[in-house]
Amino acid sequence: MSVLQEISPNVRNMIQLESTVLAIRARQIKEELRQKVRKPYKEVIDVSWGDPHRAGVKPLSFVRQVLSACLYPQLLNSDTLPVDVRQRAQTLLAGCDAGSVGSYTAAAGISEIVCRVSEFITRRDGGVPSYPEHIFISPGSQWALTSILNVLVNSEASPRTGVLTPVPCYSTATLSIMGLGADIVPYYLSEEQGWELQVEELHRALDSAKGACNPVALYVINPGNPTGHVQSRKSMQEVIRLVAEKRLFLLADEVYQDCVYGENSEFVSYKRVLAEMGPPLSDTVELASFHSASKGIMGECGLRGGYVELVNLDPAVMKYIYKLFSTYSCAPVLGQIALDLMMNPPQPGDPSYPLYSEETQHIRSTLAHNVKRVFEVVNSLPCFCCQPVEGGAFAFPRLHLPHKAIEKAKEMGMQPDMFYCVRLLEDAGVLVSPGQDLGQKEDTYHIRFCIMTSEDTMEEALRRLSSFQTQFMKVFS
Amino acid sequence: MSVLQEISPNVRNMIQLESTVLAIRARQIKEELRQKVRKPYKEVIDVSWGDPHRAGVKPLSFVRQVLSACLYPQLLNSDTLPVDVRQRAQTLLAGCDAGSVGSYTAAAGISEIVCRVSEFITRRDGGVPSYPEHIFISPGSQWALTSILNVLVNSEASPRTGVLTPVPCYSTATLSIMGLGADIVPYYLSEEQGWELQVEELHRALDSAKGACNPVALYVINPGNPTGHVQSRKSMQEVIRLVAEKRLFLLADEVYQDCVYGENSEFVSYKRVLAEMGPPLSDTVELASFHSASKGIMGECGLRGGYVELVNLDPAVMKYIYKLFSTYSCAPVLGQIALDLMMNPPQPGDPSYPLYSEETQHIRSTLAHNVKRVFEVVNSLPCFCCQPVEGGAFAFPRLHLPHKAIEKAKEMGMQPDMFYCVRLLEDAGVLVSPGQDLGQKEDTYHIRFCIMTSEDTMEEALRRLSSFQTQFMKVFS
Repeated sequence: MSVLQEISPNVRNMIQLESTVLAIRARQIKEELRQKVRKPYKEVIDVSWGDPHRAGVKPLSFVRQVLSACLYPQLLNSDTLPVDVRQRAQTLLAGCDAGSVGSYTAAAGISEIVCRVSEFITRRDGGVPSYPEHIFISPGSQWALTSILNVLVNSEASPRTGVLTPVPCYSTATLSIMGLGADIVPYYLSEEQGWELQVEELHRALDSAKGACNPVALYVINPGNPTGHVQSRKSMQEVIRLVAEKRLFLLADEVYQDCVYGENSEFVSYKRVLAEMGPPLSDTVELASFHSASKGIMGECGLRGGYVELVNLDPAVMKYIYKLFSTYSCAPVLGQIALDLMMNPPQPGDPSYPLYSEETQHIRSTLAHNVKRVFEVVNSLPCFCCQPVEGGAFAFPRLHLPHKAIEKAKEMGMQPDMFYCVRLLEDAGVLVSPGQDLGQKEDTYHIRFCIMTSEDTMEEALRRLSSFQTQFMKVFS
Repeated sequence: MSVLQEISPNVRNMIQLESTVLAIRARQIKEELRQKVRKPYKEVIDVSWGDPHRAGVKPLSFVRQVLSACLYPQLLNSDTLPVDVRQRAQTLLAGCDAGSVGSYTAAAGISEIVCRVSEFITRRDGGVPSYPEHIFISPGSQWALTSILNVLVNSEASPRTGVLTPVPCYSTATLSIMGLGADIVPYYLSEEQGWELQVEELHRALDSAKGACNPVALYVINPGNPTGHVQSRKSMQEVIRLVAEKRLFLLADEVYQDCVYGENSEFVSYKRVLAEMGPPLSDTVELASFHSASKGIMGECGLRGGYVELVNLDPAVMKYIYKLFSTYSCAPVLGQIALDLMMNPPQPGDPSYPLYSEETQHIRSTLAHNVKRVFEVVNSLPCFCCQPVEGGAFAFPRLHLPHKAIEKAKEMGMQPDMFYCVRLLEDAGVLVSPGQDLGQKEDTYHIRFCIMTSEDTMEEALRRLSSFQTQFMKVFS
């Protein structure tokens, strides 16, 4: 493989993301600022990733205290940490081999934690049973998604394996599907209807795949990334009927289940809706549901902990999935523990409850504030239009770019929204992602930015965006 | 994929490991012991994995202190932790976005840590330069190996891609190669010569692949897993000349580089030997070298931190590798930090140095003791023969099983060494891996066990193995 032509074609087919270029430039700008190069801003605001801590959200004390005690058990003997923190750490360490977070765990995760994940799911779904043997803990949900896709995608098949994938969709998901040698079968979410998933569009997408590839799975993201849409029960029922009819495996990315802001929105899991629909659907539709400690209020992206629950899979297939997970030893133990803490927070009466409650309330009210302000401010700007953010971590407003800006972008060999993002970064020090990385209808342009930030960060980002947009429109109108 | 036949053939081709069966049975036995079922032992000794903490090795205080302070920075303000620990944590947190280990990092790892990894490599290799842009931090070395293989293996190619793989070889490596759709091209290590890698055997293996597959890479493990062999410079030079001649990519698994016990053995990296051989070899041979925080004295398996250094790769190919790593966001931050601490331990004069030095000396002398005792005891047993363990974490002694035992195994539908392992587990409560999972010459039988244990654990394991073996021979002779 001394030359590019010899590398795996699956890897070669992975597209180049513009965000990478932007991120590299952002690092250079930070360095320039350190070297006192004069800019119209003192620091870069990075809202390009779904990374709450990076965007100024504070870690939860309870979580960090338990984790630090698990790492350094001498802390269990001092009064530095609250008593419930120490008890929790002790219970968690009892699940680790030889009481060390440095030991490998079972391939699917520490069995006690896996059991508590299944209890969490059962509670969440109003009693719909969940079984520990159907749950695999992974280094983040993305990793689990890729592993399940690895089982579904036959890279030697002809026609190729297809995966129905939403447009827009966060880019690592599409990259993973491509990297495994599958074909993306795009279905477009309806922006005008608040980024709704419309089942007729799924039919159109399936028709379009005829003769080109063999679609085996439908990938849905609810709450949406980057759309912020939260699916209704009715829409989910339609989706379930469709996958049953077309014999598709349903991949439900539900990592933002804890982040719902819309007054009339509610997160319901696909597992629950499927169970409520009863047999034969509830006994036959194959479903993988993903969740993560990176997302939600906790936002512990760096610890890398997620899980997948598998429903209605052939036990023989489950064995192979176990084997695949085994090849990577196990998920990071501290990520596993973070997942456990996310699902089992302190309860009223626990010494850590008041602080935990205060911190999480603060984050929730910040997010509610941010979502409201983004909607107000972005929609007040000329040529910007943002659907309500009902859930998730992102806003994905549409940009109506003036003709002159589109021409200028072409002149510079860039897509128009990439051109906009480059200017926004250079002139205002705000790093966002261009819509082209996430997918969008032809001749529409968007930007994505994270709304999981501190209030101050969001206000400053919106202030910069507003004055940049006014200036940009002046130059290019 | 409601049926097994529909899943990816690559995944379906992954073999079933007998160790999995043994591990499940070991868990049942532990449960039986908890329920006071009478057994000839009070607890199961698990030496089946290369997992030092599980086998009784204690975590290093310095490492755990720094990690806990990084997680819970309030500890930086108290005197609970030594001052150099707090300084180190502060420096590390400065490399994390927004000072939180909960933020994602760059795909290749925190840039400051990547730089320190390259400095470590340069020191280790006597000044041979190492460049940060050639280093990728990963959730364990196995993960990095699979990612590099992913780039090398063309699952659509005909003939199929082949990877030269040692026999014996730890099983997750072979599973990964199979799982990617490549063919294993086995080359046998010479047990009689202390598990030496012989270059003539590589030629034989390459000849055997003719017409069957297209070998693109040679995978070597040094120090060996499970063999315990440490390669000589001369042997490595021969290997390098061969891969240059045959245009093979060299995958050097060097995770046990810090664990060398043989008096006349020394670890030298492939990178260094390659550099010493000068141009044209040093400018052309493509090499990936893997290392890990799981292995070595630190033994932090559960944190999942490793790296790969890539040498002489086409920059265009490097771009794709970066992209592939990007799809998984980043390695766990605490695993990255563990890696950094492994490479930059406390120095004489630092407040943490005396304790660190005491703890690591203790582990090193324990390992030296274990290696010596394993050699003495195992070789004193009837029908057992163990090559000297010069490095690594395992002993892989050969078992000369009596005919009656082989017959009995066949009767029970088991491979003879699996039968031995099952009996050893049931009768003596010692969990080891059967040679068949690691590969061995036909009609030879081995077991693998970890020597990275506490002295007590090793002595007890050897005591049980000795009396079991005596009894076993009595029954089956």
